[in-house]
Amino acid sequence: MTAESLDAIFDRLIRDIPDFPQPGVMFKDITPLLADHDGFTAVVQALAAAGRDESGAVCVDKVIGMEARGFILAAPVALALGVGFVPVRKPGKLPSATYAVSYSLEYGEATLEMHTDALVPGERVLLIDDVLATGGTAAATASLVAQGGGVVHALAVLMELSFLHGRGALGETPLLSLRTL
Amino acid sequence: MTAESLDAIFDRLIRDIPDFPQPGVMFKDITPLLADHDGFTAVVQALAAAGRDESGAVCVDKVIGMEARGFILAAPVALALGVGFVPVRKPGKLPSATYAVSYSLEYGEATLEMHTDALVPGERVLLIDDVLATGGTAAATASLVAQGGGVVHALAVLMELSFLHGRGALGETPLLSLRTL
Repeated sequence: MTAESLDAIFDRLIRDIPDFPQPGVMFKDITPLLADHDGFTAVVQALAAAGRDESGAVCVDKVIGMEARGFILAAPVALALGVGFVPVRKPGKLPSATYAVSYSLEYGEATLEMHTDALVPGERVLLIDDVLATGGTAAATASLVAQGGGVVHALAVLMELSFLHGRGALGETPLLSLRTL
Repeated sequence: MTAESLDAIFDRLIRDIPDFPQPGVMFKDITPLLADHDGFTAVVQALAAAGRDESGAVCVDKVIGMEARGFILAAPVALALGVGFVPVRKPGKLPSATYAVSYSLEYGEATLEMHTDALVPGERVLLIDDVLATGGTAAATASLVAQGGGVVHALAVLMELSFLHGRGALGETPLLSLRTL
């Protein structure tokens, strides 16, 4: 038996929803993927590869997930790599002292926060989200990591919407995208 | 070497934040737990026990996580049990057709949604959240499961705030709480 390829998993389990969240946008719905144990497991393993060096050794200290779909992917990736998980959240959700960054995103404006004590200075972090669109969320999270004294090792996403040019917002941050659209 | 007990993990890694999100409330902050690989792993395994029968066999078909902190716990539990993950989300976040339930919660009113095709009729589901407070979120989720033709096997949470009497909102649903406060 051959393991299903990531391309086949995406073809089978990512669903196009037209005109969501607004007319003219084709939304990539990952809920069928999350509901499929084998598919979900395969993408978690593939994303976790971004936190390993050439020899396969884990080379990050923390995995950050961006609220809310990023949580669903990042928490399992952190557990797979044997490192801690850090949430980056929408304003007012984190109860202790936070750093905050406001930015533009695909459909408006947003602010993200991270606890000021979430990272030990010098820690290397892997950022995980479902989609790289304009790159605003990723760039804001990278700014939070810098404020916390951490170093962004890489960003890993399921899908890159290349027509939105998010890669340009990432600077020198390496990107692992499991599928480019 | 003896594994750290769940009580010791909670004592070490759950942080009290006074007056959040409003004066007089003592918020239980789980972010130190999530940042600790051993602690996070231990609570995922303990929560997953609610999806196994007396012989240790998995007896649920899906694990549901409630947005947003529930996602962080429920996705790893689903992967640990070898079953699919289903998100229950705040209004307007799920892109396809949904069931919706509105309810009262500890700090106001809320609505939750689940995709109408998230469950196959007859499937048994395990609900996962971080805290059982008044039980409004859990009862609303149970209602969504019923609308979707599923059967709630149990609710598993890290902490039960027993002084809010959430257990009374659960009806016959079995509850696994890793710590009662």
